[in-house]
Amino acid sequence: MIKAGIVGGTGYTGVELLRLLAAHPDVELTAITSRGEKGRTVADLFPNLRGRVDLRFVEPDEAVLTACDVVFFATPNGTAMQSAPALLAAGVRVIDLAADFRLRQAAEWEHWYGMKHACPELLAEAVYGLPEVNREAIRSARLVANPGCYPTAVQLGFLPLLEAGLVEPDSLIADAKSGVSGAGRKAEVGILLCEAGDSFKAYAVPGHRHLPEIRQGLAAASGAPVDLVFVPHLTPMIRGIHATLYATLRDPGAAVDLQALFEQRYANEPFVDVLPSKSHPETRSVRGANQCRLAVHRPQNGKTVVVLSVIDNLVKGAAGQAVQNMNLMFGLAENAGLNGIALLP
Amino acid sequence: MIKAGIVGGTGYTGVELLRLLAAHPDVELTAITSRGEKGRTVADLFPNLRGRVDLRFVEPDEAVLTACDVVFFATPNGTAMQSAPALLAAGVRVIDLAADFRLRQAAEWEHWYGMKHACPELLAEAVYGLPEVNREAIRSARLVANPGCYPTAVQLGFLPLLEAGLVEPDSLIADAKSGVSGAGRKAEVGILLCEAGDSFKAYAVPGHRHLPEIRQGLAAASGAPVDLVFVPHLTPMIRGIHATLYATLRDPGAAVDLQALFEQRYANEPFVDVLPSKSHPETRSVRGANQCRLAVHRPQNGKTVVVLSVIDNLVKGAAGQAVQNMNLMFGLAENAGLNGIALLP
Amino acid sequence: MIKAGIVGGTGYTGVELLRLLAAHPDVELTAITSRGEKGRTVADLFPNLRGRVDLRFVEPDEAVLTACDVVFFATPNGTAMQSAPALLAAGVRVIDLAADFRLRQAAEWEHWYGMKHACPELLAEAVYGLPEVNREAIRSARLVANPGCYPTAVQLGFLPLLEAGLVEPDSLIADAKSGVSGAGRKAEVGILLCEAGDSFKAYAVPGHRHLPEIRQGLAAASGAPVDLVFVPHLTPMIRGIHATLYATLRDPGAAVDLQALFEQRYANEPFVDVLPSKSHPETRSVRGANQCRLAVHRPQNGKTVVVLSVIDNLVKGAAGQAVQNMNLMFGLAENAGLNGIALLP
Amino acid sequence: MIKAGIVGGTGYTGVELLRLLAAHPDVELTAITSRGEKGRTVADLFPNLRGRVDLRFVEPDEAVLTACDVVFFATPNGTAMQSAPALLAAGVRVIDLAADFRLRQAAEWEHWYGMKHACPELLAEAVYGLPEVNREAIRSARLVANPGCYPTAVQLGFLPLLEAGLVEPDSLIADAKSGVSGAGRKAEVGILLCEAGDSFKAYAVPGHRHLPEIRQGLAAASGAPVDLVFVPHLTPMIRGIHATLYATLRDPGAAVDLQALFEQRYANEPFVDVLPSKSHPETRSVRGANQCRLAVHRPQNGKTVVVLSVIDNLVKGAAGQAVQNMNLMFGLAENAGLNGIALLP
Repeated sequence: MIKAGIVGGTGYTGVELLRLLAAHPDVELTAITSRGEKGRTVADLFPNLRGRVDLRFVEPDEAVLTACDVVFFATPNGTAMQSAPALLAAGVRVIDLAADFRLRQAAEWEHWYGMKHACPELLAEAVYGLPEVNREAIRSARLVANPGCYPTAVQLGFLPLLEAGLVEPDSLIADAKSGVSGAGRKAEVGILLCEAGDSFKAYAVPGHRHLPEIRQGLAAASGAPVDLVFVPHLTPMIRGIHATLYATLRDPGAAVDLQALFEQRYANEPFVDVLPSKSHPETRSVRGANQCRLAVHRPQNGKTVVVLSVIDNLVKGAAGQAVQNMNLMFGLAENAGLNGIALLP
Repeated sequence: MIKAGIVGGTGYTGVELLRLLAAHPDVELTAITSRGEKGRTVADLFPNLRGRVDLRFVEPDEAVLTACDVVFFATPNGTAMQSAPALLAAGVRVIDLAADFRLRQAAEWEHWYGMKHACPELLAEAVYGLPEVNREAIRSARLVANPGCYPTAVQLGFLPLLEAGLVEPDSLIADAKSGVSGAGRKAEVGILLCEAGDSFKAYAVPGHRHLPEIRQGLAAASGAPVDLVFVPHLTPMIRGIHATLYATLRDPGAAVDLQALFEQRYANEPFVDVLPSKSHPETRSVRGANQCRLAVHRPQNGKTVVVLSVIDNLVKGAAGQAVQNMNLMFGLAENAGLNGIALLP
Repeated sequence: MIKAGIVGGTGYTGVELLRLLAAHPDVELTAITSRGEKGRTVADLFPNLRGRVDLRFVEPDEAVLTACDVVFFATPNGTAMQSAPALLAAGVRVIDLAADFRLRQAAEWEHWYGMKHACPELLAEAVYGLPEVNREAIRSARLVANPGCYPTAVQLGFLPLLEAGLVEPDSLIADAKSGVSGAGRKAEVGILLCEAGDSFKAYAVPGHRHLPEIRQGLAAASGAPVDLVFVPHLTPMIRGIHATLYATLRDPGAAVDLQALFEQRYANEPFVDVLPSKSHPETRSVRGANQCRLAVHRPQNGKTVVVLSVIDNLVKGAAGQAVQNMNLMFGLAENAGLNGIALLP
Repeated sequence: MIKAGIVGGTGYTGVELLRLLAAHPDVELTAITSRGEKGRTVADLFPNLRGRVDLRFVEPDEAVLTACDVVFFATPNGTAMQSAPALLAAGVRVIDLAADFRLRQAAEWEHWYGMKHACPELLAEAVYGLPEVNREAIRSARLVANPGCYPTAVQLGFLPLLEAGLVEPDSLIADAKSGVSGAGRKAEVGILLCEAGDSFKAYAVPGHRHLPEIRQGLAAASGAPVDLVFVPHLTPMIRGIHATLYATLRDPGAAVDLQALFEQRYANEPFVDVLPSKSHPETRSVRGANQCRLAVHRPQNGKTVVVLSVIDNLVKGAAGQAVQNMNLMFGLAENAGLNGIALLP
């Protein structure tokens, strides 16, 4: 059994990690830390876990964490980078669900996250945990930067087009819609039911922190810098991201079978599902499941390709992908503990 | 492997049965029938099942169904009673998720359901599938009447009080609130998002079909007829029932430890969870899980006991309880295939 | 034009008061105060008011407020009582939307609200602003205690029965369900969309502050103390209260026309609507409107009367009722500024 | 008083027209027709109108309608064109809220709507009822084609850019999100609360009927054909459209004050509100109000302009705009009956 610890398990990625790890056949939940909830039982905070998780929150403490084989950070940005070096030195594998290790360039990270990076020397070693791109590197990684929720949905949708060089890399648009759980479990007025419910809005149009992360991944796929407009929106639902992606064909006159392109790209991917032609994936079709579902369209047979990409932001967009990465890092079946079927309705 | 068939799998109890049975370690899904969707793949109708269920809907056909070990009816009321006799005669076990076999008295059934009963002779044999009451009878049953969603939540909440003779059986009140999935997957205006969303109402106050079913069960528990007022409400959510139950103590002056009473009654029940004193269960704490969570209160230490009971109407209130019954009938572990943790948030 | 001021207008009752007063033909909005938002335009905080309200939030300041004819307190409990004496002394009428002046007995108030009352001498003078009971007293009041949202819905439902002496006053049950706006516009985790959405729960079953307020009103109506069990619930919607009320007939054998009783009681009430027999009011039928809709049932012709009562908690349950009270206090048409039709869907 | 009739008032645009017209100071509601609900009171179907609208639904009958000064068609596509010629001949003004008279070209209409047009000769006379473009023509129109909901939000957002010739007309993208009421009040499974709730999806990506309508309007504004990709989505809320619009600057290097451009274009428009720079309009800020709110962005100062446009699909996107058109046609104040403030929360 793999001994797993969670740092900062009081948010939505924390409780989702707990749900997945508690049911994982090869994992023993060893410790979960929270300064604020120290001493409280996990099941008291998250009643869905009553009878399934017996742990209490404990202080984040190096001794507790170095006894683990793997430590997940479900913490705000800037936390994992404080502890990761010591844990790695102690032989513990680290999976950060926040952004600390997602960008290659420390300067760019510091620009977008507004703080000094505590261990820029680890950025080169950290593996960006998108298995559909970096599967082999993840297997041997000590430190995995789990991708953001928007970046997962957007990259999986654009990758086939960019890898094949079919679209212009300088006019990409990602219009993304997220359920409110993407904003976390924080006492903020803007995400109250009475503020975010029965309403819809864009936010952060001038610039969102997931933009550089997406650009970095798409540039790698296309072998050249990309120009991307990324507009996130808040949708009155709990879970789910729907990314609607627009790209311009380099050669609109050339014959190209987009459906086949997508199906082939993901033919062997256990967690990416390309829907039949003319489909429209719904976010609820992945609710609670570690799954990305995609559809590709070319409206009016014009120059613009439209890709529809849905994930559960807390699963394939966070905790599920983290478990998928853990499975790869420890040589387990990639889908171990990840076979839950989406809850519909 | 147990060969399982589902008759009428196009509704919400159908898709939930499919979700549970597809992941059940001891079950092989053999057939699913639907006249209206004949030939269509199940995953086309329910995209959450893509890659997990390969079946197509077929005509309801005796040969197909008699090849099963067990057949679930996820059909409208009045359907199972047409086919059950032949299936039973062929040695197939039958679990009806509708109401055909829930009432002992054919006359009462015919009064509430407005049709002639097709096989009243089976009513005496049918076992009411509430394992917390009838576990042993279910083990050997050929025909199980799976309880209604409201009746499950209401009976589990009242049972400890009535069995102990602590409350007046003639002044029970069940104020119950259901998510909209309880109304089924039907093209009706009243359950549109724009009709049932962001609004709350009672319905069927003059009389609801679950009333006689609940009365029958409570009368058995108390050993005497009961007088029950049952008021169901429609809540703007998808899954979940919350029953708020009121009963009058026979002897308000006597010392009684209600918390201990409930904890002892359900000490060995795998799917009933008595919360600590002063708790308020949320429906989301059981979303997707085969679980009933209960809390018992005595406000202002007065003569009225208030019990709060929550279930997922599609799981412990329908498909999950049906699988629990199947597990008992076939000698499997009672929780086989039922260990999913509720999805929160 | 009546000069109106609002103290503490950053919550939901505040913005609703602003919506109603900005469109009121006889009112000039003079000042709105908020320490936290001082200097900010009202329309910046509440974009629905762009182009309709030009005010900025100012410090609560006696000079500003004494220039008003009437001051509304849309503040937390315990605020209005600090300022009311000075305002009244300056000849300003005061309407408190919080609880400071709702209970007759200072000791009871202090017990439930956990603080010392600042001006208990005003409790006898304050008029409880339920026009359907106290219309004449309100007309001449200097100080009105605007009723709570639950108390409005519950009292209007029980009044006809208690005033007529038809039901036992010692076994009343009010099972009430509120939209989340009833909890206010506060940065609290429990009312986040991801906590309160798609879920249902009871709360404060051991005791809620609206209990003594309701009991006081019902006791006055029945001429005797009442025994009431009050269970509030949180419903995943924004606005609306649905109270389901249970009372036991004193003489179940006597002929009584409950429908006529209710229709006669409210025949001349502009804001109480008794629905036809067998009806089930929906909260959305009063969304945004100063209206209570009622239906009365007697299930199975038994001993229990069931009353269904709906209001918009922010309108008839708060800001609308406050404007209705102001209209009465200033000799305006009772419905001035209150003719908005409910928004459906 | 203007005598107004409504044909087909049982849907959401119908009830919204009733809400607005019942409160309109210059209108007398004369008749409302529905074959299916003939004889039923309007208030029975729409309880928000109890006490405010006394009419019953009547058969659509020429005599009833020719007694009106204006008739609104809130009917499915293809209905108004059957009756409009006779009504116009009788001197009745006609406002069609459906699509029958929106497209200039009969052939294009017949292609997208799949039926023969009944009176193509009226297409040239019909005025497209977008007052921000056609105000003067509307004043003298006999027949107004009320714009679609998406077309209203999309055109108002793109117009300033296209009229000024600032963006490429051949690479426009409109990513639009609608509340479920846009799909109407129809008994269809896809818009049940349990299907459309807590989920998000695109639909009609291959082609939506509002595409030619939008293209026609944008081409007129730009003086040249436009190439537009239009992707509509279904959002789990009741009312509201949010259009996120993308256009490419013709000369990204040129200095241009987009904020000033938008503010000047709509400086005198009573129902279009340009938000301050860097804003993100929310659909709830226009809930129930005849208002479009816009914000314009240029992310990272790049070549792409992003416009955010919100309306209430039932008000500025349907019934409110129809009343605005009626006001213009009858020489009333343009905002008569349209001053309701949006309901927030």
